[in-house]
Amino acid sequence: MKNYTSFKDIPSIEKALETAFEVKKNPFGFQHLGKNKTMVLVFFNSSLRTRLSTQKAAMNMGMNTMVMNVNGDSWQLESELGVVMDGDKPEHLLEAIPVIGKYCDIIGVRAFARFERKEDDYSEKIINQFVKHAGVPVVSMEGATRHPLQSFADLVTIEEHKKVERPKVVLTWAPHPKALPQAVANSFVEWMKETDYDLVVTHPKGYELALEFIGDVKVEYDQKKAFEGADFIYAKNWSSYNDYGKVLSKDMSWTVNEEKMALTNDAKFMHCLPVRRNVVVSDGVLDSPNSIVVEQAYNREVTAQAVLKMILEDKG
Amino acid sequence: MKNYTSFKDIPSIEKALETAFEVKKNPFGFQHLGKNKTMVLVFFNSSLRTRLSTQKAAMNMGMNTMVMNVNGDSWQLESELGVVMDGDKPEHLLEAIPVIGKYCDIIGVRAFARFERKEDDYSEKIINQFVKHAGVPVVSMEGATRHPLQSFADLVTIEEHKKVERPKVVLTWAPHPKALPQAVANSFVEWMKETDYDLVVTHPKGYELALEFIGDVKVEYDQKKAFEGADFIYAKNWSSYNDYGKVLSKDMSWTVNEEKMALTNDAKFMHCLPVRRNVVVSDGVLDSPNSIVVEQAYNREVTAQAVLKMILEDKG
Amino acid sequence: MKNYTSFKDIPSIEKALETAFEVKKNPFGFQHLGKNKTMVLVFFNSSLRTRLSTQKAAMNMGMNTMVMNVNGDSWQLESELGVVMDGDKPEHLLEAIPVIGKYCDIIGVRAFARFERKEDDYSEKIINQFVKHAGVPVVSMEGATRHPLQSFADLVTIEEHKKVERPKVVLTWAPHPKALPQAVANSFVEWMKETDYDLVVTHPKGYELALEFIGDVKVEYDQKKAFEGADFIYAKNWSSYNDYGKVLSKDMSWTVNEEKMALTNDAKFMHCLPVRRNVVVSDGVLDSPNSIVVEQAYNREVTAQAVLKMILEDKG
Repeated sequence: MKNYTSFKDIPSIEKALETAFEVKKNPFGFQHLGKNKTMVLVFFNSSLRTRLSTQKAAMNMGMNTMVMNVNGDSWQLESELGVVMDGDKPEHLLEAIPVIGKYCDIIGVRAFARFERKEDDYSEKIINQFVKHAGVPVVSMEGATRHPLQSFADLVTIEEHKKVERPKVVLTWAPHPKALPQAVANSFVEWMKETDYDLVVTHPKGYELALEFIGDVKVEYDQKKAFEGADFIYAKNWSSYNDYGKVLSKDMSWTVNEEKMALTNDAKFMHCLPVRRNVVVSDGVLDSPNSIVVEQAYNREVTAQAVLKMILEDKG
Repeated sequence: MKNYTSFKDIPSIEKALETAFEVKKNPFGFQHLGKNKTMVLVFFNSSLRTRLSTQKAAMNMGMNTMVMNVNGDSWQLESELGVVMDGDKPEHLLEAIPVIGKYCDIIGVRAFARFERKEDDYSEKIINQFVKHAGVPVVSMEGATRHPLQSFADLVTIEEHKKVERPKVVLTWAPHPKALPQAVANSFVEWMKETDYDLVVTHPKGYELALEFIGDVKVEYDQKKAFEGADFIYAKNWSSYNDYGKVLSKDMSWTVNEEKMALTNDAKFMHCLPVRRNVVVSDGVLDSPNSIVVEQAYNREVTAQAVLKMILEDKG
Repeated sequence: MKNYTSFKDIPSIEKALETAFEVKKNPFGFQHLGKNKTMVLVFFNSSLRTRLSTQKAAMNMGMNTMVMNVNGDSWQLESELGVVMDGDKPEHLLEAIPVIGKYCDIIGVRAFARFERKEDDYSEKIINQFVKHAGVPVVSMEGATRHPLQSFADLVTIEEHKKVERPKVVLTWAPHPKALPQAVANSFVEWMKETDYDLVVTHPKGYELALEFIGDVKVEYDQKKAFEGADFIYAKNWSSYNDYGKVLSKDMSWTVNEEKMALTNDAKFMHCLPVRRNVVVSDGVLDSPNSIVVEQAYNREVTAQAVLKMILEDKG
């Protein structure tokens, strides 16, 4: 595996899962692969789980790590081509990326959607410049349109908790005070489509995901109907794709609560975190034994390590 | 030792001192205990000594370390229960803490008094949520009411420099432009009470420490009288406990200077640092050979390592 | 080698170059020198290349590293002597420096010119306090008047790319929207003077470097004339030394472009980065095969490692 920025990069679901369970069982067993190798984690945006889990995964592999917050540790980086750089951005990605690549063996990069131009976000302008110019493998720690380390962890978590061969997995939109990217939802759908799970997506009208992601996945606008018989409820807010980056509704009737969970087949509750309690989901659901959000978060370390292992083996 | 948030957590003063002198003599001799183990240092507040000394101590033990500034690297964390999280705090401690615990073997956390509600501070609302939900040992890198790594280092420093079996140790309040927590003073008293030193606390009226800390320790409101015959002068500012978090006085006649030090028994001068020169203490005292503040700071690394060793051995 | 803050600290150009090529060939071959040793990197200013390359160099040497942003991780540090510290700086360098020195074996420090008082900057007030009080070797990661890790990397880069024994090396001023220090230019001249290269410096009137640096180096005020027959063009902006810290001109006719490069002897283009495209240098020059800025940046890791090796061997 050369880079890891989307589902398309993994060799196969089977190989990915096999590697994840292998490193989960034996996290310190592959340090020869990372010896004297370094991962740089570049953050254009804040992070808690991704920061800690990816750094931990790299250390499990025996790698050295360096973490850089673009706006706190260094300075703003220009991403437009051909501009006269006389403003507030003293360095261009065209220099910064290959230079960072010279100091390490793998780059992790987080660069959220900016909601300035849909075309920029959906062409993954930042992540793709890293892939093009880094000279070393690039791992997306959440791009503008995908969060592939999260989706891989979601898959592992469902595999560990499913009680039937073909569980019903429901991705439900939930309200949120601020405009959030579609990345987690896009990416989750992209992965789940490739399984044989019974996938249903539910959201208010206007929150349709981009066609390239949703494809022919079943969309149910009635949240309660969607919940019926579900084995997994995955809650997530996202802003509108069509009316790009807009918060069309903060309808609190979409909050996931105990009453709605009662409609499911004793479903497990999932969320990528951070989650706003009593907005996205009620305290009652999040504090119930069916909530598996912490285990899901732990699988972030596992799948980040699996990704690094697949990349390091490829280089070896 | 399971956690380390106060004096009550150490097995005994004797065991604590023995471990400190052991790791000071042989800092790299216990790396088998920390191999493939990770400490996460979580900072809700700024830090210089604690950050570097605790990270260094963990590395001495052979551990990996990850450092996270809550407000710079990630985002604000909610600590109230039952709230509708539609404000500026996107994640709750109830998720953040167990997730961080999943990525490491020991958590260090710094969470100062906020001076919003005395009850919140004196119930150690943040630190105690970490202890309750982390799932791994928690080390206080200064809570709202105690700074136990500092006090342990203070004890080691006095033990190393005392010339008589039962030295006179004076904790003196000193002026400061801003309201500071009582944590260092509380914690120092809590430790010193358990020794057989002759402990005297001196401060202007109104600066009485909480009864749970000061107990029946001798308080002398006349600073010069307190200094007479002292072997150690420990200076520290704190704000009022009774008129909670208020600066009642910036009385510069309480600054520790050469004239007052002349009243002592050639006392050593101590301070936890950072210290404001010519406010808390004069240049002359701080630059004199009797000032042991840098050695005291170095013992922060030593005692942090002793704490980690006791915790890692307990787990082993 | 005890400290590294200027050219004067290296044993000789020959030894420095020999060490650089040695570690470039075998970066992981000297880890016994750094085992159980720690480098602290202290940043008063932002950094990208210096941060990553120096930390990487230390890790190559088998050292542990800790990074501290003075203003983000800790707090502002007072540098004036004798002041009453009742303002916004809670700690003095007189305490901070020896304390940091207690927690490590080598300190790296970045402290740019502040442009407040020329005397303060040109006496290297911050760096020199570190050298005086650290108790361990100090490496300048760019001071107020010099950037010696950069200049060493510049030398290595020229040595690797020169086609003739005595190449013509031209340092050219270029426009920039903000006032920048003279450090890179000073330091470059300081190093180049010690080689037998044909060194020419070109800049508009008013941008003369301090006499202690420029010495009797040839200054040519006609940029095009300076470029004639050059083997290396090193572009860099700096603010005025005489009218200290002032931007006297943003004359875009000084931008390095293809037309000017055509006057050279197929010169390589160099810059320390970050560089403002189409202000300092045109896209065309920077994207041409003759631009060696990324290789130059990579040599930052190499020469930082060479410096650490020379220091660690001296201590050994």
